[in-house]
Amino acid sequence: MVASGHRAVARCDALGGGRFSDHPDYLYRPYLGPAHWAALDQTRTWMHEAGMTTRIDAAGNLIGRYGEGPALNQKALLIASHIDSVRDAGRYDGPLGIMLGIETVAALNAARRKLPFAIEVYAFGDEEGSRFPAPMLCSRAVAGALDPAALDVADAQGVTVAQALQGNGLDAAHFLDARRDPADLLGYVEAHIEQGPVLEAHDLALGVVTAIAAQIRYAVKLTGVAGHAGTNAMALRKDALAGAAEMMLAIERIAAGGPPDLVGTVGRISASPGAPNVVPGEVTFTLDLRAGTAEVLSAAETAVVFEMMAIATRRGLTLELDKTHELPPSPCDPAFRGMLSRAVEAAGVPPYDIVSGAGHDAMIFSPIVPSAMLFIRCKDGISHNPLEAVDPADAGLALRALLTFIDQLEAQYV
Amino acid sequence: MVASGHRAVARCDALGGGRFSDHPDYLYRPYLGPAHWAALDQTRTWMHEAGMTTRIDAAGNLIGRYGEGPALNQKALLIASHIDSVRDAGRYDGPLGIMLGIETVAALNAARRKLPFAIEVYAFGDEEGSRFPAPMLCSRAVAGALDPAALDVADAQGVTVAQALQGNGLDAAHFLDARRDPADLLGYVEAHIEQGPVLEAHDLALGVVTAIAAQIRYAVKLTGVAGHAGTNAMALRKDALAGAAEMMLAIERIAAGGPPDLVGTVGRISASPGAPNVVPGEVTFTLDLRAGTAEVLSAAETAVVFEMMAIATRRGLTLELDKTHELPPSPCDPAFRGMLSRAVEAAGVPPYDIVSGAGHDAMIFSPIVPSAMLFIRCKDGISHNPLEAVDPADAGLALRALLTFIDQLEAQYV
Repeated sequence: MVASGHRAVARCDALGGGRFSDHPDYLYRPYLGPAHWAALDQTRTWMHEAGMTTRIDAAGNLIGRYGEGPALNQKALLIASHIDSVRDAGRYDGPLGIMLGIETVAALNAARRKLPFAIEVYAFGDEEGSRFPAPMLCSRAVAGALDPAALDVADAQGVTVAQALQGNGLDAAHFLDARRDPADLLGYVEAHIEQGPVLEAHDLALGVVTAIAAQIRYAVKLTGVAGHAGTNAMALRKDALAGAAEMMLAIERIAAGGPPDLVGTVGRISASPGAPNVVPGEVTFTLDLRAGTAEVLSAAETAVVFEMMAIATRRGLTLELDKTHELPPSPCDPAFRGMLSRAVEAAGVPPYDIVSGAGHDAMIFSPIVPSAMLFIRCKDGISHNPLEAVDPADAGLALRALLTFIDQLEAQYV
Repeated sequence: MVASGHRAVARCDALGGGRFSDHPDYLYRPYLGPAHWAALDQTRTWMHEAGMTTRIDAAGNLIGRYGEGPALNQKALLIASHIDSVRDAGRYDGPLGIMLGIETVAALNAARRKLPFAIEVYAFGDEEGSRFPAPMLCSRAVAGALDPAALDVADAQGVTVAQALQGNGLDAAHFLDARRDPADLLGYVEAHIEQGPVLEAHDLALGVVTAIAAQIRYAVKLTGVAGHAGTNAMALRKDALAGAAEMMLAIERIAAGGPPDLVGTVGRISASPGAPNVVPGEVTFTLDLRAGTAEVLSAAETAVVFEMMAIATRRGLTLELDKTHELPPSPCDPAFRGMLSRAVEAAGVPPYDIVSGAGHDAMIFSPIVPSAMLFIRCKDGISHNPLEAVDPADAGLALRALLTFIDQLEAQYV
């Protein structure tokens, strides 16, 4: 059968349940669970059929290698994504990038193409952090960016990563051996569903990621005065929830007023004492701010904090801000991005630059090797949900773009 | 010892703990608990000392009667409040009205005053509903306004009112015998702490209640679309929490724009799925609206519902409104109010009309007999809290006002 986007999608579907899930009712494929190994076995078979040699590294990543070409000890272009899933997952978040990597190699192999570099398709064991609260464990190991303390984090049953490795015939002491020397790597490319509605809204099958967004997260606490809902006149209240409401609207207004890649979200809120007939005296909420560049994020953060302080002061509320999380942006490599844009255009899709608001394995590699990401439109922007859907025709366009990208990379050697 | 506001406050303090509380660490005096009976015993002693005969009725209410005067079978003026408390209560919410009733009688008795009517001081067993979810059980029984089904509601331990009565030597079958024939009643007066900050803000010791507020409560549910906080551009979101924030500000704006007795409160809120990195797809919150008249409340309700519908429509959210509670206003009797206002003025306090945003036993009596309520300033508007505080001098002014009120009532018989 000839390499195709249709087959890549069909293979994701094949991995979407049964022995490839650790839950009978929905897709859940956590790192180092039985489903993970079943999926690796199946994927290894597909890699072999596509003409690759395979191995599993010390972190439980499956690697299929295509090459050696004219030169021995060729540098490798990594085409990678993750095989693990969140709980009650969709079928494409992660696996589609791996399957498109396999299709890319299958197409090259069918044409008996000899390249001046190797291609390695990586199926990372963990990106989601859905079992162990240490996401991107496996790509961090490969990139040499892993803090070994991460091996001591435990899952909900109290099993640590180190113990789980042992139970799977792997050895925590060798986990860091999964590291690759950047000198051996030509670059990193990842195809992934967008997990958002932007490409669909623009009627585009593909998007070229310019950067993975910078991110800041705050825990916000507002303290006013609780009181009886009937006896406290409006003018005399210090209602923490009304203050929070004003802040949430300010956050929305500031985020909506910036460039399209600027987003601001209040995802969790709690009001105390939380009775229908009591004015809330205390509110806590989370604030998540993301943007494609550190400059935009910093400007938005300044504006949001300024507004929150002004609102708290005007209302006589006490505001406490705790910055719980800060991540710099991970810009994609300009040369790789340029090649990917031209490849997308050659596939008949107007090139469209998009910032990834979600984290991906690519952000782990961008500091050490040229990296690029290709986004594929998904239906209604839905992800982390069984309703996740990808048009096979879009996957076909992604495959064409990856092949043209490789053509351009090869051309640099001439 | 001479009758005084100071003694009324001191007696509330004396009932504020020890055997008068069913919790060792804070004041909690629920209906039909040991502390309730201990408080009745003590209060009965004080009633005797004030010159009253006492009895406990079929609902566990303690009644002290002062009279008969010139005519046998005199009508009685009720001076009443409740002896029960919420959990972790203050010392004055309820008992102060009873103690001021006893002081009123003590003053009359010390002066050997014979009145053309009797005075009965009621210590209602339950107003708060802090044990059984059926507030004002005892005043409803006295007013003949009790649905007997209320006797089947159970406390947190599964004990029903009927069972608790049995365990206290009372009989549920006779509970409704606590009813008084309105023909035997001259009227109803209740002194109570304000439980709000309005009198303090106006530097007034006393306020004359014009009505107990009408009240409407809604359960509001807003449905949008949940999504990844990073990948969903602001313009494409249907964020249920941002919509709720806009609604909360509209509620606050509408309530603050009305007369001082109009209040609107969102006391409880919940956002789902409730993760910092997920745009909330569903939000539920409570809305509590109160006003002194049905007209103001209805106008505010219309405005709030209109705004919420407009916000939901503009944001593409689904709005579900469930009216869970509706209470008409309980206006106080104009003649009684007028006498109380003059009595307050005679006590040296500029008369100030105030709507009670909280419910009180008085609202149970206002449909059947002329009723009035006197509010006493409390510190910082704090109630349902051990920090509840009353200035004994303010209680003294309340006592003077009650005595002058009785003088006026007596004058009508001349």
